[in-house]
Amino acid sequence: MLVMGVDAGGTSTRAVLATDRGECVGFGRGASGNPTSSGIPVALAEVRRAIAGALDEAGATLADVSWIVVAMAGHDARGGASDWILDPLTQDGFAGTLTFESDLLAMYASGAVAPVGYGLVCGTGASAVRVEGGRIVATADGLGWLLGDRGSGFWIGRAAAAAAVDELDGLGPATALTPLVLQATGATGARDADGGEDGRSVALEQLVRALYARRPVQLAAFAPLVFDAADAEDPVARRILTEAGDQLVRTLELVSGTPGPIVAGGSIVSRGGIPQDRLRAHLDAAFGRQSFVLVDSGAAGATMLALRHAGVEVDEETLRRVRAGIPA
Amino acid sequence: MLVMGVDAGGTSTRAVLATDRGECVGFGRGASGNPTSSGIPVALAEVRRAIAGALDEAGATLADVSWIVVAMAGHDARGGASDWILDPLTQDGFAGTLTFESDLLAMYASGAVAPVGYGLVCGTGASAVRVEGGRIVATADGLGWLLGDRGSGFWIGRAAAAAAVDELDGLGPATALTPLVLQATGATGARDADGGEDGRSVALEQLVRALYARRPVQLAAFAPLVFDAADAEDPVARRILTEAGDQLVRTLELVSGTPGPIVAGGSIVSRGGIPQDRLRAHLDAAFGRQSFVLVDSGAAGATMLALRHAGVEVDEETLRRVRAGIPA
Repeated sequence: MLVMGVDAGGTSTRAVLATDRGECVGFGRGASGNPTSSGIPVALAEVRRAIAGALDEAGATLADVSWIVVAMAGHDARGGASDWILDPLTQDGFAGTLTFESDLLAMYASGAVAPVGYGLVCGTGASAVRVEGGRIVATADGLGWLLGDRGSGFWIGRAAAAAAVDELDGLGPATALTPLVLQATGATGARDADGGEDGRSVALEQLVRALYARRPVQLAAFAPLVFDAADAEDPVARRILTEAGDQLVRTLELVSGTPGPIVAGGSIVSRGGIPQDRLRAHLDAAFGRQSFVLVDSGAAGATMLALRHAGVEVDEETLRRVRAGIPA
Repeated sequence: MLVMGVDAGGTSTRAVLATDRGECVGFGRGASGNPTSSGIPVALAEVRRAIAGALDEAGATLADVSWIVVAMAGHDARGGASDWILDPLTQDGFAGTLTFESDLLAMYASGAVAPVGYGLVCGTGASAVRVEGGRIVATADGLGWLLGDRGSGFWIGRAAAAAAVDELDGLGPATALTPLVLQATGATGARDADGGEDGRSVALEQLVRALYARRPVQLAAFAPLVFDAADAEDPVARRILTEAGDQLVRTLELVSGTPGPIVAGGSIVSRGGIPQDRLRAHLDAAFGRQSFVLVDSGAAGATMLALRHAGVEVDEETLRRVRAGIPA
């Protein structure tokens, strides 16, 4: 029996074909597989590309697969309707069962087998979940850039842009972030006041125009600049990252309950630095030594969920095998 | 000799036809006259409608007008180019001079004749300017909803939405804002957790969906709810309005210099309540009794600027006459 786990993300999609022992026999990739961010036609094409890649590698067909789990954000936004993806796969010969799962549950299952535990994701957005009995029973934040995503890549990137704007507007202190943000946006005008109209600098006018020309969520692209400036001991950058870490701790506390492993993923927590340090320090202080696992995608977890759906008794050894079989 | 002042705002446009003594002989209205928010065809049509209304009332034609001042936000965004509005007016018989002015300078001139003073506007956005020699020499904030506009209608409305979301997500205290915001967005689902997916309430899911379906700036529509809740002594609403007032004080301080009159306009400062109280308390404490003037548009100021451009020596009496001639 073969199962397939698909991690359909906003940037990339990964598909894993595995045996009932969790041995990976095929792996495929696609670009954005999330219909919310890319539209159904593109998402479908990329999910199919990833699935086809995994099948090709194993010399298998869809008829050989008994269960497919597709993990994606907003998985229930369409009331769980899977027709847009199930119908084409059925036409291609799939005769098994397809289920959608939360990307957060898949991320958790990529790092832990325990039925009770916590997942924290912090990439462009930020969210925490509590898992009990293998299901998500509580969620905090994940409210998007306008209302939440506290401590996320967007949150950090917006803080960098605001720090630069504040320095140029006389509201905030000088910071190494200002030249970095100006350079990143191509705002190369003079920074002295009175250069532009109404007593403002040309650089500030250019920067504000450049920032509003982007989609808000694109401010997340400035997050790496904050890590760079913090490495160079810039106090404003260090304050932003410290607050980001504290916000993530707060989000995690909102779903806290019975102790369990904590699985974290996403670019902001996965890279070393202040946010991850703050998280570890909090967890050590609150719980003593405990399991804190970093994962780089939900691909292993989607595969683990597919195995569980298909009736396989999974354990730590199964997870180790699945993870070992997935290319970096 | 006749001059015309046009206050071309994002919501409405006002045109005033005045004699060289500042007597208003015609008044006209149009809808949005700002090309940034409405596009040039609509903005042009509405500005022409307001101008035609003012001319009709006086039985005058464009040939009788020697100077037109059009005050609008982002007046220099097109490098001051006035062709889009000057060419059609010239075709209609206008043979005088047309100049663009900052909406903030026009607002200041609606309330004060002194060459040195301060303007503070707080409607959907928030900004402060210092005027010297009749020109704006320093500007603070006005940086838009994503980067600034601290204390503005958007800032207050977003805080109301965030307070509701935070209560429903378990992050913030109970507040009278939550039912008000839920009602305003039509989020009528159950508020108890676990009703929706992944341990969230249906009401929170509905609210978040409704908020992201709007343009961000539309969150300013919630600002009146905060004043209502503050009137009913809701502590969260009172804290939001107190912080808004303090932010406006801070923005005004960023442009402070030689003492002068302070002219304020915009829906948030014009209505009574905590933000205006905070401003008055700060000004009294910092400067003792001094001139604080509320104005309801830049129409009088645009007319005063047109008179000054046309070589008329204006004084407090001229301003009094212009203001008296403009319908509420």
